[in-house]
Amino acid sequence: MAAYSLEDLAARLDARLVGDGRCRIRGVGALASATTDEVTHLSSASYRSLLPATRAGAVLLREADAAACPTNALIVADPYLAFARVSQLFLVEDGLPAGAHASAVVAADALVDPTACVGPHVVVGAGSRVGARVRLHAGVSIGERCTIGDDVEIRPNAVLYSDVSVGARSVVHAGAVLGGDGFGFAPDGAGRLHAIAQLGGVRIGEDVSIGSNTTIDRGAIEDTVIEDGVKIDNLVQVGHNCRIGAHSVLCGCVGLAGSTTIGRHCVLAGGSGVGGEHPVTLCDGVTLTATTIVTTSIDKPGVYSGSMLHNTHTRWKRIVLLLHGLDELVKRVRSLEKRLPEGRR
Amino acid sequence: MAAYSLEDLAARLDARLVGDGRCRIRGVGALASATTDEVTHLSSASYRSLLPATRAGAVLLREADAAACPTNALIVADPYLAFARVSQLFLVEDGLPAGAHASAVVAADALVDPTACVGPHVVVGAGSRVGARVRLHAGVSIGERCTIGDDVEIRPNAVLYSDVSVGARSVVHAGAVLGGDGFGFAPDGAGRLHAIAQLGGVRIGEDVSIGSNTTIDRGAIEDTVIEDGVKIDNLVQVGHNCRIGAHSVLCGCVGLAGSTTIGRHCVLAGGSGVGGEHPVTLCDGVTLTATTIVTTSIDKPGVYSGSMLHNTHTRWKRIVLLLHGLDELVKRVRSLEKRLPEGRR
Amino acid sequence: MAAYSLEDLAARLDARLVGDGRCRIRGVGALASATTDEVTHLSSASYRSLLPATRAGAVLLREADAAACPTNALIVADPYLAFARVSQLFLVEDGLPAGAHASAVVAADALVDPTACVGPHVVVGAGSRVGARVRLHAGVSIGERCTIGDDVEIRPNAVLYSDVSVGARSVVHAGAVLGGDGFGFAPDGAGRLHAIAQLGGVRIGEDVSIGSNTTIDRGAIEDTVIEDGVKIDNLVQVGHNCRIGAHSVLCGCVGLAGSTTIGRHCVLAGGSGVGGEHPVTLCDGVTLTATTIVTTSIDKPGVYSGSMLHNTHTRWKRIVLLLHGLDELVKRVRSLEKRLPEGRR
Repeated sequence: MAAYSLEDLAARLDARLVGDGRCRIRGVGALASATTDEVTHLSSASYRSLLPATRAGAVLLREADAAACPTNALIVADPYLAFARVSQLFLVEDGLPAGAHASAVVAADALVDPTACVGPHVVVGAGSRVGARVRLHAGVSIGERCTIGDDVEIRPNAVLYSDVSVGARSVVHAGAVLGGDGFGFAPDGAGRLHAIAQLGGVRIGEDVSIGSNTTIDRGAIEDTVIEDGVKIDNLVQVGHNCRIGAHSVLCGCVGLAGSTTIGRHCVLAGGSGVGGEHPVTLCDGVTLTATTIVTTSIDKPGVYSGSMLHNTHTRWKRIVLLLHGLDELVKRVRSLEKRLPEGRR
Repeated sequence: MAAYSLEDLAARLDARLVGDGRCRIRGVGALASATTDEVTHLSSASYRSLLPATRAGAVLLREADAAACPTNALIVADPYLAFARVSQLFLVEDGLPAGAHASAVVAADALVDPTACVGPHVVVGAGSRVGARVRLHAGVSIGERCTIGDDVEIRPNAVLYSDVSVGARSVVHAGAVLGGDGFGFAPDGAGRLHAIAQLGGVRIGEDVSIGSNTTIDRGAIEDTVIEDGVKIDNLVQVGHNCRIGAHSVLCGCVGLAGSTTIGRHCVLAGGSGVGGEHPVTLCDGVTLTATTIVTTSIDKPGVYSGSMLHNTHTRWKRIVLLLHGLDELVKRVRSLEKRLPEGRR
Repeated sequence: MAAYSLEDLAARLDARLVGDGRCRIRGVGALASATTDEVTHLSSASYRSLLPATRAGAVLLREADAAACPTNALIVADPYLAFARVSQLFLVEDGLPAGAHASAVVAADALVDPTACVGPHVVVGAGSRVGARVRLHAGVSIGERCTIGDDVEIRPNAVLYSDVSVGARSVVHAGAVLGGDGFGFAPDGAGRLHAIAQLGGVRIGEDVSIGSNTTIDRGAIEDTVIEDGVKIDNLVQVGHNCRIGAHSVLCGCVGLAGSTTIGRHCVLAGGSGVGGEHPVTLCDGVTLTATTIVTTSIDKPGVYSGSMLHNTHTRWKRIVLLLHGLDELVKRVRSLEKRLPEGRR
């Protein structure tokens, strides 16, 4: 198990240490429950009341909070970011040796860097390239002509169809499917549907994260594109020919219809979705709150909502029925206004 | 094919038999379509009208319905529960021999009970323990330091990351992913997102069922916890550090944001979701109807709703536009009220 | 890379060629960006303005648009359908040789056609039949007593439980799970839930497409049925005993509760869902717009909606609160009406 002195941590995080530099830290904890060999953080004002009672070995916090800290303090400009960095020190990576497991099936003409780890039952298709220190976990299937950048990690049973590229340091979680056929069909006169061949690929940038069982379809003609630094959670659906701008965030269960464009630094909270009669574009810096559905383009950064609140079942049943009569209610108000003109008392 | 005499079934179900105990039952059927060698059930009053015409070999029903039964009757206090029990008698299990298939890759220090079935292309990581009569189907991937309790069944291509425990008799369906990284990132000054290492695990209780392609993330610091008897359907997303109380039910496509707490004996119907600005808690005994979204905590048991009803597209387009002007309508009503005070006629 | 003369394409598509029949076509492109060796299409009036500037080698279009075409024209009755057909000519299939890969595990009594391709790490269970020219990609798991029709393609890591049949020419995308247990439990007096054994199977028709990570549960007693020509996108949940009529379309993230019946030629747009207190039936020819939830049966063809629009967060927060007081607003309007009867001015 990893252990670091506070002195060492302070140096790694460029933090000012107030306290005992020899204190050994063996993990991270929450402010309320961290133990004396764990480091925690105070990042949000709403947790400030927990600081005096913490029993943590050290707390990452801002200068302004240092005086109230009852234990060792690591003073930084951004405690949450520092916590992200320190947390990585305690990550235990699964043991996956470099080289290909005997059960892996790697095409003769695939180029796999000798430092890459190719786990049990992995398949790498013809013409694919796998970069340095890549980790392909058990059961991963890589199609043909794929490019996997250096230091990429692909978790068990994820699937890349052919013609998918993944940039350096990206992570693809278990069961994700990249490059499945886009959903495009042309109806004939009898209403039978004929598939449009999906001839584009998928391009994933660097430092991207793709969640478990998320699906990202290949493009119909051009590629589906996920730019650098995008973070996508679990069970997200990205249709063909979407383009997601750099450093945007798609939380769990988000759905994007084909040809949707998302700007940079957008945040789509859980269960939100984008898609309309025509392709929809969100400009840079748009945030959608959870389960908000957007059917027309947004060209102004900001926070947008459209989700419901809950109520007791009995009350809500009444309200939702009244909602479906809202046009009648508006007519009644208009009729009252006609009978009682503005000037009248 | 299994066959049971009604005498035998009555004894197994602790039912009172009215009719021919030698009648042989070879399967189960629906009240309207069961044949003379099948047993069916009358559990809900809304099916009572179908009873006189049933051609079933026997009907599980309550005392009060026995007189109207035109065939053999198995009288029980709870016909639906008795039907659940009898249905299990006719289940045909897939043949999976005990021991590890030649293609399975089991870590040298993993402890696998000799009665466990380890199917083709299964991987079991270092330090994991697999209990008695466990059935790991084809392509299952078990990470490191996992604990799989006795009589657990894990269906093809499901994935357990490291540090996941599953209690006795639980079932994990195909493609489910347990223990993927929680979705936590800290932004730096340039809006780039840095991953918080997810150092907790996942603890699944006993008699839990987890649906196909469902995802349950590992905790950031502490574990994500699913208590005993919880039943989770397909394509459900459970974020990091959620806690789901015993015997609760999450139907298909439910989504829980990180750090959500669900009480015991809750029911979250299809497509419902929980998550808000702050962690949300539902107390014991809360039911959410389908597609209801809850963004604030609920501390009183009961049924809650917030979902929409459909309408014709033309009518609904008008109504939803009027809804977005509801604040204006309220102002107009207030203005009318001012012009026409309460006392006035 | 495939190449076709326009003469050849015209013959294959039964199109009238205006232009140079010797022109070689090597792929497809979009009207705005196609190059001189690509064929494109003008199918929708909204793209007509792009036609004069196209640099495509040829354009599939209607007679009425031929005069405005600046390049070779292929005149057809339905350009989009013709484009679907021509796109298939340029599809590059992954190389998967006929016969079973050495790592595949095929039950001794399974009947696999010698022309079928059984990829690495595939499992085919006892009593299953695999038809001619079937392509089972890496990591596919087929249970027992399954029937896979001729020319079916099943993509990596998809899972078929036992007793699933798939009709000729159907495609199952990666990670899809067919035949998982339906979600049925009977509570006992203590609120513990006991599984109803799911004894039915799944029957998939011919020419069906099933998206990545979609889940289709087996029936409780009778089969879950997907009729011919149905197209299902990614991350769709189909509960036990659903029946989906021929040539219907389920877009991404749709959810169907158990025992839902969908008619023929229906379209369920992205994120829509069907399910209520009682089983719901949609008649033939019903279209649901995106994220519309239907809880009661629909017996008249047409377009139905019930989804929300977005607004700025601040404005929407106000509106949604007012919505929850809609019953009070209606009372206030009624009170005004009483004080100001119809005849009054």
